[in-house]
Amino acid sequence: MSGKIQVTVWNEFRHEKKNDAVKAIYPNGMHEVIRGALAAHKDLAVRTATLDEPEHGLTEDVLNQTDVLTWWGHVAHGEVKDEVVARVQKRVLEGMGLIVLHSGHFSKIFKRMMGTNCSLKWREAGEKERLWNIEPGHPITEGLGEYFELPNTEMYGERFDIPTPDKLIFVSWFEGGEVFRSGCCWERGHGRIFYFRPGHETYPIFHDANVQKVLANAVRWAKPRVRIADQCPNTKPLEKLAPVKEKFGKVGVLQNG
Amino acid sequence: MSGKIQVTVWNEFRHEKKNDAVKAIYPNGMHEVIRGALAAHKDLAVRTATLDEPEHGLTEDVLNQTDVLTWWGHVAHGEVKDEVVARVQKRVLEGMGLIVLHSGHFSKIFKRMMGTNCSLKWREAGEKERLWNIEPGHPITEGLGEYFELPNTEMYGERFDIPTPDKLIFVSWFEGGEVFRSGCCWERGHGRIFYFRPGHETYPIFHDANVQKVLANAVRWAKPRVRIADQCPNTKPLEKLAPVKEKFGKVGVLQNG
Amino acid sequence: MSGKIQVTVWNEFRHEKKNDAVKAIYPNGMHEVIRGALAAHKDLAVRTATLDEPEHGLTEDVLNQTDVLTWWGHVAHGEVKDEVVARVQKRVLEGMGLIVLHSGHFSKIFKRMMGTNCSLKWREAGEKERLWNIEPGHPITEGLGEYFELPNTEMYGERFDIPTPDKLIFVSWFEGGEVFRSGCCWERGHGRIFYFRPGHETYPIFHDANVQKVLANAVRWAKPRVRIADQCPNTKPLEKLAPVKEKFGKVGVLQNG
Amino acid sequence: MSGKIQVTVWNEFRHEKKNDAVKAIYPNGMHEVIRGALAAHKDLAVRTATLDEPEHGLTEDVLNQTDVLTWWGHVAHGEVKDEVVARVQKRVLEGMGLIVLHSGHFSKIFKRMMGTNCSLKWREAGEKERLWNIEPGHPITEGLGEYFELPNTEMYGERFDIPTPDKLIFVSWFEGGEVFRSGCCWERGHGRIFYFRPGHETYPIFHDANVQKVLANAVRWAKPRVRIADQCPNTKPLEKLAPVKEKFGKVGVLQNG
Repeated sequence: MSGKIQVTVWNEFRHEKKNDAVKAIYPNGMHEVIRGALAAHKDLAVRTATLDEPEHGLTEDVLNQTDVLTWWGHVAHGEVKDEVVARVQKRVLEGMGLIVLHSGHFSKIFKRMMGTNCSLKWREAGEKERLWNIEPGHPITEGLGEYFELPNTEMYGERFDIPTPDKLIFVSWFEGGEVFRSGCCWERGHGRIFYFRPGHETYPIFHDANVQKVLANAVRWAKPRVRIADQCPNTKPLEKLAPVKEKFGKVGVLQNG
Repeated sequence: MSGKIQVTVWNEFRHEKKNDAVKAIYPNGMHEVIRGALAAHKDLAVRTATLDEPEHGLTEDVLNQTDVLTWWGHVAHGEVKDEVVARVQKRVLEGMGLIVLHSGHFSKIFKRMMGTNCSLKWREAGEKERLWNIEPGHPITEGLGEYFELPNTEMYGERFDIPTPDKLIFVSWFEGGEVFRSGCCWERGHGRIFYFRPGHETYPIFHDANVQKVLANAVRWAKPRVRIADQCPNTKPLEKLAPVKEKFGKVGVLQNG
Repeated sequence: MSGKIQVTVWNEFRHEKKNDAVKAIYPNGMHEVIRGALAAHKDLAVRTATLDEPEHGLTEDVLNQTDVLTWWGHVAHGEVKDEVVARVQKRVLEGMGLIVLHSGHFSKIFKRMMGTNCSLKWREAGEKERLWNIEPGHPITEGLGEYFELPNTEMYGERFDIPTPDKLIFVSWFEGGEVFRSGCCWERGHGRIFYFRPGHETYPIFHDANVQKVLANAVRWAKPRVRIADQCPNTKPLEKLAPVKEKFGKVGVLQNG
Repeated sequence: MSGKIQVTVWNEFRHEKKNDAVKAIYPNGMHEVIRGALAAHKDLAVRTATLDEPEHGLTEDVLNQTDVLTWWGHVAHGEVKDEVVARVQKRVLEGMGLIVLHSGHFSKIFKRMMGTNCSLKWREAGEKERLWNIEPGHPITEGLGEYFELPNTEMYGERFDIPTPDKLIFVSWFEGGEVFRSGCCWERGHGRIFYFRPGHETYPIFHDANVQKVLANAVRWAKPRVRIADQCPNTKPLEKLAPVKEKFGKVGVLQNG
């Protein structure tokens, strides 16, 4: 406990059970690799949660104790219960950080936070990706150089249907000729949201040292700064009001002013 | 038809049926006053739709023929069907304009487009509001001076829980001591969204000449620039790809590169 | 006159006089090709101005009659007089549009409007550039497809040291592996600014149909919406002020409240 | 030294020498009060610099050792040497924080960083100001409530001619009827800039506990995250380039492809 950032790593955890190629890369699930990478940092306390757990592992209690939630999903977005999505959204708006990974662009929670379709172009061809660091002064790029490369990735191409990011962190170059806004920051309510593009299940993306560095940086950036419950209060005036003189003469209705 | 901007004015239309004070101001419903104000402009073709019509008056057909939709609701947000909300959202993301009025800040459609709670402070005390024109060069403020006043309004105060607007157009000063971001622009998908604060049902806000000017300006600003259906295409490479050499040596899995 | 948008195409016009390869592409100067491309549109009235004219061709009179100014410079940024730069800046802040082309990223006027170094990476290798259209609904991309290509260009790479654009329109992919924010919009004062990356003098960039389309679109987007002279007025209160009771008790100075 | 944030408090320091009312509030100069307020925090190491010192107290050496610079000026903006302004700008773009106070809105350095006129409305009438906290989750508002008040202030009113802030922190309500964007954040180059409205010399603004809290918070927010010198490098390709085939057939010049 004790001042550590409490991270919950959420994973759909389906590909790893059914697909041997994916299982070979992530024998215990992608979440375990992400958990391990984050837990290597002394300031981070990391738990995991997966789709097939009760309430998808995201009970009120778990979310109440979560500072930053990371999200990976792909084939089962539709199985995530709306009430859990609403619960996560509520916590983000109160201040919890949310980090959405790769195919999570189509998750219910990301689409709900963005208000857009979050669609894009894509291609599975194992091609090279080079992520350019557009904001070398941003906490999320700390310790990275001008760019880093992933030798084999699924391609995501523009136009990515998102609200203009508050801050654009990475822009990807793809071998096949596309570009993509691969690292995007937003604030919604009191919470921070980071979308990070890499992460296809058939390549060992989350074993990559640079990707792991981005994840740890992003968690620190997204940690809550406040926790403020939603309210819509009826409030008293701070200044003395003049007596109301309702002069609706313009429409000929009230003229008692 | 013929090049006119097709506007649909949507109104909850409940207060006007039940409350004599409101009925006195809007005998045929608020939507009829808004319709009339907009229809006075030759470039605008205006229809109305209300909550209690079938599909709330927002059938596929109506929305397909709508360039800009204005939205006023208050006591019955919960009665708006989710499928109609989804339909409106889809059209906004394709390019339709959306103008959300006053208590519409808590409508399902506005909250869905924003991704936030959209809550605020409020007070019904008939106090004075002065709307300062922060962007005198913006199309929405065309023909307005440095500010305009409403003698009696419901107060809305900050913090207004919205994503940072792309452009902040009006900031209100209230007699009772609050301020509010009263005119806010966003783009979502291919559509434009404008939130405009004034509009409480117990004051003749939509009879006000400046308010009417803002509405007409906002409709013109929000008119579609394109209509693009959502897609998420699998695409072919534009450049020749090197053969995939999967060298996952880092995790000791594949080394056939 | 007559409602046309008044465009002034400014060119440094030095390469074309000294370098045979450039002269072969732009025998009468780059400005003449740009002028011709814009003048083909009936709604645009186009004149030119160049560095070696008196006051660089940008007299008070010329600027007063200019709605949108396009700017190309490269080897002689330092020769542009500060007083002319100040004059152009003043006009932009009043509402004039400014379109900065390619190596104009290092012009005095662009750096002054941005407040940053405007530096970038570069390489002259005649490589291929593909400009991705990130905002298909924006007026500047009207009539363009998802991307367009230039077979031979100078490369500009990130990080481009600019303030975050209000709207990012194009992102370029380069054959050599870089990416670039190639179309960027800002508003400053009452004026609009568009930076457009392509335009190296040794390739026939301004003969390209897509580039010409972008220029015409950008001129229309950047046309003035108002013309408002700068002022910083001392103003009278709009509300009755309470008598000043200066109670500086906290610092023990005044206590006459 | 030792990890403390190095703050330099810059003051024009003219009013305090000539005007008895100001001298009564700030006997040793406004900078000494600001210095004292900041130096009360263990993580801040604070020095001062004033206009009439050699190089205005802002030598290369001082700036090299400065993490965050605060700026107050009013009647002598024109006396600040352009070379010192350029030096400060260079440091901000490298990563140094800059906090501009009150009448500093018209300083050379603020106008240079913004690129706009930075003009506004104003009135000296000792009226009440209420600063609304628009971003309760932002580090600059830490420890503040929903608003705070200043009993006597000079009024600044909109329109404030600045680029749209990256983040709007405070909006002021004035007794006389105006509003103002009183706390504004920008990033330029690698540096952060905060403009904070209060600070008129004839009221004891910098003795106010809330104002002092904002200043300390702002210093921490603006501290450098990197220090990166400007460069504009010629770079080698990262990917193999196809041989240039210059086919300028479109303009009939080169056809050697």
